[in-house]
Amino acid sequence: MPTTNKQVLLARRPYGEPKEDDFSVVDTALDDPREGQILVRNRFLSLDPYMRGRMNDAKSYAAPVALGDVMVGGTVGEVVASKHPRFRQGDVVTGALGWQEHALVEGASAGLVKIKERPGVPLSAYLGAVGMPGVTAYHGLFDIGTPKPGETVVVGAAAGAVGSVVGQLAKLTGCRAIGIAGGAEKCAHVVKDLGFDACVDHRSATLKDDLAAATPAGIDVYFENVGGPLLDLVLGRINPFARIPLCGLVSQYSETQPYGVKNVVSLLTNRVRLQGFVVSDRMDRWPEAQQRLAGWVAEKKIVFRETVAEGLASAPRAFIGMLRGENLGKQLVRL
Amino acid sequence: MPTTNKQVLLARRPYGEPKEDDFSVVDTALDDPREGQILVRNRFLSLDPYMRGRMNDAKSYAAPVALGDVMVGGTVGEVVASKHPRFRQGDVVTGALGWQEHALVEGASAGLVKIKERPGVPLSAYLGAVGMPGVTAYHGLFDIGTPKPGETVVVGAAAGAVGSVVGQLAKLTGCRAIGIAGGAEKCAHVVKDLGFDACVDHRSATLKDDLAAATPAGIDVYFENVGGPLLDLVLGRINPFARIPLCGLVSQYSETQPYGVKNVVSLLTNRVRLQGFVVSDRMDRWPEAQQRLAGWVAEKKIVFRETVAEGLASAPRAFIGMLRGENLGKQLVRL
Repeated sequence: MPTTNKQVLLARRPYGEPKEDDFSVVDTALDDPREGQILVRNRFLSLDPYMRGRMNDAKSYAAPVALGDVMVGGTVGEVVASKHPRFRQGDVVTGALGWQEHALVEGASAGLVKIKERPGVPLSAYLGAVGMPGVTAYHGLFDIGTPKPGETVVVGAAAGAVGSVVGQLAKLTGCRAIGIAGGAEKCAHVVKDLGFDACVDHRSATLKDDLAAATPAGIDVYFENVGGPLLDLVLGRINPFARIPLCGLVSQYSETQPYGVKNVVSLLTNRVRLQGFVVSDRMDRWPEAQQRLAGWVAEKKIVFRETVAEGLASAPRAFIGMLRGENLGKQLVRL
Repeated sequence: MPTTNKQVLLARRPYGEPKEDDFSVVDTALDDPREGQILVRNRFLSLDPYMRGRMNDAKSYAAPVALGDVMVGGTVGEVVASKHPRFRQGDVVTGALGWQEHALVEGASAGLVKIKERPGVPLSAYLGAVGMPGVTAYHGLFDIGTPKPGETVVVGAAAGAVGSVVGQLAKLTGCRAIGIAGGAEKCAHVVKDLGFDACVDHRSATLKDDLAAATPAGIDVYFENVGGPLLDLVLGRINPFARIPLCGLVSQYSETQPYGVKNVVSLLTNRVRLQGFVVSDRMDRWPEAQQRLAGWVAEKKIVFRETVAEGLASAPRAFIGMLRGENLGKQLVRL
């Protein structure tokens, strides 16, 4: 039984873009499981943009991480010891067990899910296309975006863990899927590997014209992961009765001066529905979503890319890089 | 039979705030009705913020008014001659017959409605609480705002034709109704005459604190008529799962530099649904809305104020004043 645990703690609240020394990597003593508990060895840690919000001491849908606490985060790992009847040694579990190698948790914890491994679906997929990002894409696109065949769906951060699934779901629905991503490499990946109809580079000097050329019939659904000036640009091409699932605003999380969205009048004249959502509000959608996503992944109808950092100590650096858009696809840390 | 007609034409597209010489008042020859037509003597013309949008040559939900054309506008009047079997001399009709004293129209025109006068409901109410503004309030609040008893409903432009009805409908639903209006006189009217629970003055230096004091339990529904910095302020007090029916942006219509809304992240973290709407998209809601509104007006459960300008030639000046917020309640022109 392991007796020490490596953890990443929130050492300081970042101002603007996080820095590596906003975190501290520590070794702490690890107890044996008590009655009702299990000990999990995490194999992969998921790094996601929402974590930036948890580092602020601000009112939000979830409490902030306290200073000195282990950073929150989704994990997949295996049970190494169990004193809970539902779990046995060797079981694979996903949960939000945080930035740490081991986790000693109550077996009855909400969100702790035992995974039945299935051919064609790697473990890490349960943190990506078949996990929280995939379910986010599924709920946001289908329940809020309500796309209809033939409509144009534009996806921000299209090379990211959520966006990559959104576009593929849009294609499976019979829509035209247009990605927005940062840089030529990501755009090529979005079109060639993920099968979007086109992808525009938000760093390009001709972005406005590129977006217009890629959306000749306007935009019916904009899956918003980014925010900032891009939202104004999209609002300039939005169609009447369009829907905007507001999933993330990664361009804004570290901004000390948020961007002001000017084209609000387009929301009015086009009768747009813009709706913020958080996947954890709709736990009732997980079973259906996860089952269908796993099926599509196994059939290779949904493909995905991962960027994997090695070792827990690399997590802060990888997280900062992800906020800058340095990753392609799902950002993971192998523990 | 009258042989000339006074009309107000759009002479020039306004840049920013309209000026009186953007309009021209003309006398034109009037024909007798041909087969299928009716001649209407308009008694009241409605002046509404949406008209500012129609003066721009911009893509919107309705075509712009062409230069030299009669300005669009809702009217109530009486039939002076009819060659259509559905109408008789003396019938009272509402429609969008424009800024003119007489209108020669096809009796089969869409939107031309014969009014059955009813005790306690004055003719002019069919341009206000029982007409387009009232139905706008009804559809926007009930169908998009979906208020529940006990919730806090905040209403922009609360002393205006739409806002005044929204707040009274919120009270009839068992909500806390908070108005936002410009100046002490309007705020007093909103509370004392219209029965809102409180009203804050958007011109006050203490607006932010005043709004906080009036909404101790946050904001569940914000009926947006105004836009600009007020929207950011409201987003700072919005509750999780709040709804924002986006009905108008009167602060922005004449702005050449639109205000940038900064607190978009609040829409995300609070999972807010913001939805632009136009009442004419939902003609199916008119019969129910109009019937219930007329009933509430007759019972004095909905009261309203009117600001009446005298004579068609005063319409441009009255319209400019309305955009500045100089009116109290529904702005009309008596013809």
